[in-house]
Amino acid sequence: MNTIWKNSNLYIDVEESSIPWLKIFTKYQYQEMSEVPKEIRYEIYEILDIIERLMIEYYNPKKINIASFGNYLPHVHWHIMARFENDSHFPEPMWGEKQRNKEPNLPPMDEFIKKLIENLDS
Amino acid sequence: MNTIWKNSNLYIDVEESSIPWLKIFTKYQYQEMSEVPKEIRYEIYEILDIIERLMIEYYNPKKINIASFGNYLPHVHWHIMARFENDSHFPEPMWGEKQRNKEPNLPPMDEFIKKLIENLDS
Repeated sequence: MNTIWKNSNLYIDVEESSIPWLKIFTKYQYQEMSEVPKEIRYEIYEILDIIERLMIEYYNPKKINIASFGNYLPHVHWHIMARFENDSHFPEPMWGEKQRNKEPNLPPMDEFIKKLIENLDS
Repeated sequence: MNTIWKNSNLYIDVEESSIPWLKIFTKYQYQEMSEVPKEIRYEIYEILDIIERLMIEYYNPKKINIASFGNYLPHVHWHIMARFENDSHFPEPMWGEKQRNKEPNLPPMDEFIKKLIENLDS
């Protein structure tokens, strides 16, 4: 796991993938979103919105995908991914059947993460 | 599609499945969540919260799963599912590999939907 940002309630990890894929975790472990205090739930939604807008601006993806499962790891966390028509699984979700071996040619993620941290801290 | 509830911004459909699975659609088509007006985004999150709490109370599931993909249908919609250890795909997401042919033995969905509509309209 590679944590790129945190505050007193949440932290953001990068998922190792051929697409831009971030995960937002609550600092304290809650099994379900409805157990998370309302202000932290809304903080998660605000951060998903900031990440989505920046992914769209920076990567120009075909679609943004968002999910919260936690079936293996019952600790609330949200996935947000930029999807591309030629990525490994499109139009299937990243948990679905692999469609091809190609990887999309994308601008460097370091620059995206730098911009994201600036946005989150501003 | 089986629409069980709607208001001026949103409607809720039941997905045909062996598990409890609802979908929340925006009335107007937006491609991405960040294009949806903020008050409607928060209305979606409130409805996801209401559905999740009632699914937990009524079905006592192992886990709630939530997702917004729209790769096939680029019209913002959210999936919310009650998951059970013995359902067809657990612990994989419902878009992952099928794990077994069993179906969980669940209380009637009609009663759940009736309670949900009461909650949404109160």
